[in-house]
Amino acid sequence: MRCQTVNRTDRSLQTTMIVTLAGGTGAAKLVLGLAHVVPSEKLAVIVNTGDDIELFGLRICPDLDTVAYTLSGRVNPQTGWGIHGDTFNCLTTLADYGAETWFRLGDRDLATHLWRSQLLRQGLSLSEVTQRICRALSVTPRLIPMTDAYTPTEVVTDDAVLHLQEYFVRERCRPVVRAFRYSNMGAAQPSPGIEELIMAAEAVVICPSNPFISIGPILAVPGIRHFLRQTAARVIAVSPIVAGRALKGPTANMLRQMGHPVSARAVADLYCDFLDVFVLDRQDFNLIEDIEALGMKAVAANTLMNTLEDKVELARQLLESV
Amino acid sequence: MRCQTVNRTDRSLQTTMIVTLAGGTGAAKLVLGLAHVVPSEKLAVIVNTGDDIELFGLRICPDLDTVAYTLSGRVNPQTGWGIHGDTFNCLTTLADYGAETWFRLGDRDLATHLWRSQLLRQGLSLSEVTQRICRALSVTPRLIPMTDAYTPTEVVTDDAVLHLQEYFVRERCRPVVRAFRYSNMGAAQPSPGIEELIMAAEAVVICPSNPFISIGPILAVPGIRHFLRQTAARVIAVSPIVAGRALKGPTANMLRQMGHPVSARAVADLYCDFLDVFVLDRQDFNLIEDIEALGMKAVAANTLMNTLEDKVELARQLLESV
Repeated sequence: MRCQTVNRTDRSLQTTMIVTLAGGTGAAKLVLGLAHVVPSEKLAVIVNTGDDIELFGLRICPDLDTVAYTLSGRVNPQTGWGIHGDTFNCLTTLADYGAETWFRLGDRDLATHLWRSQLLRQGLSLSEVTQRICRALSVTPRLIPMTDAYTPTEVVTDDAVLHLQEYFVRERCRPVVRAFRYSNMGAAQPSPGIEELIMAAEAVVICPSNPFISIGPILAVPGIRHFLRQTAARVIAVSPIVAGRALKGPTANMLRQMGHPVSARAVADLYCDFLDVFVLDRQDFNLIEDIEALGMKAVAANTLMNTLEDKVELARQLLESV
Repeated sequence: MRCQTVNRTDRSLQTTMIVTLAGGTGAAKLVLGLAHVVPSEKLAVIVNTGDDIELFGLRICPDLDTVAYTLSGRVNPQTGWGIHGDTFNCLTTLADYGAETWFRLGDRDLATHLWRSQLLRQGLSLSEVTQRICRALSVTPRLIPMTDAYTPTEVVTDDAVLHLQEYFVRERCRPVVRAFRYSNMGAAQPSPGIEELIMAAEAVVICPSNPFISIGPILAVPGIRHFLRQTAARVIAVSPIVAGRALKGPTANMLRQMGHPVSARAVADLYCDFLDVFVLDRQDFNLIEDIEALGMKAVAANTLMNTLEDKVELARQLLESV
């Protein structure tokens, strides 16, 4: 939605349907916070699958897994991805065989990919498989891949067109980015339920994820950006840029390389056709006026989410702005 | 070959090409012994792939792996299969997902299956993949799958037709066997080189493996039994039955259920169309005359192979009978 005319402050959070758009580690933190203040059945997470990759014949969905592992308490807290205490004996042995092992596959993590790939081969959709995985991990909020199609994000650099994971993990984000390609999107549809969820939501929360490689692919799924413009839900984004820097990952460099200023305002601008509220870090309070000039409300908060309390507190503040 | 007319005792072992037909754990012991007395380049192992299975989209070749792990010193000495010190974190997590986990896949072992499956998908034949795996494991004798085709052995029981591994691992050999089916053999060919190896060999050694589920599938590959009848090589089998019992596994029960006496002689009889020498355990020396009545030479030896010295000594005795 792009208006502030509906007053929903009288509605209880107990009946509020909150839909989030999520990438990986940063998003998982906020979703964990939301899961502490929103009843599970009222929380849905639409997850980027543009960073999915097929390796060793396995379908690997890093963002779906990061969110599921985080919500189930299994995530490795040091890295923000993978499984806490996982071993890497399979990967080490693959390296002995001369296999490419730049993508870090833990032994326990591998089970998720083997299981998912098996169910996909049996004909289940990625949405159905994700539900099965979440049930097994006792993840109660609804996790939905943005699409059931395989739509890997490609990074166009001066030298090559790379799969996102090749750029991100293998090349460690070093090549200069010229463009992103959200491949195979022509045939893609939003996963079942996404339209209804966004249209019926009380609020849609765009997590503090990279706008090009985490949120961008979700918005590129035919229909989803349109639903965000059409919904009566309050659409709220949390800035992934704080004080001109990305909290994690290549967001700052990507903004620069794509010709944008490295600023929370640049992110707000990317979403300005559907955003109602932009939540920026309190360090950036001086940008409030600039961002509100884009035609949205701007709110300052502590967005750093170092502790669980931080995550829950930010989630609470977001819901108050609904 | 089925004659004793050629005298090869004047030839050196250094120039003798020894070809073995091998199943899993029992065979691997004898092959290890042979590898200590035959130069690597003179030793070829044709391995049963009838117990291969596809699980989680992976091609698993238990006998090939058992022989390769044994020759490379990686095998788990307690079980005779799998990798020494392997962990099972992936399998445990698969069980949490509700996957079928009766087939014991170690984390390091899994790397072999992932790597093999990847190379097969890339279009390499199983023979080529096996060469790659052996090179990585520094296994120098030549290991050859009996065929590049996928020809799983099926076990016909009163209640169901089971994949061999379902019968062997999942059902722990409990169902009564009515028949074996070497499936998909119509289209199968011996792997490249097998005909030449058998025809040019000085000796072919049939390892003390199960005649129905380890050696039987190899003999069922179109052509192989014929090569054994035609070759000038001395064909020698080592009995898997000692004193009326199988050293390991279901050989004794299978002989009984298939209507044979549980005796070394019954095994010799199964091979009598191509066998020149049958090596039985010294506990069974009283069977020598009976077996020689089948038209072959019978030799008693210590076939138990508990220690490496036993394995090497048995290998030496076999070569002396060439």
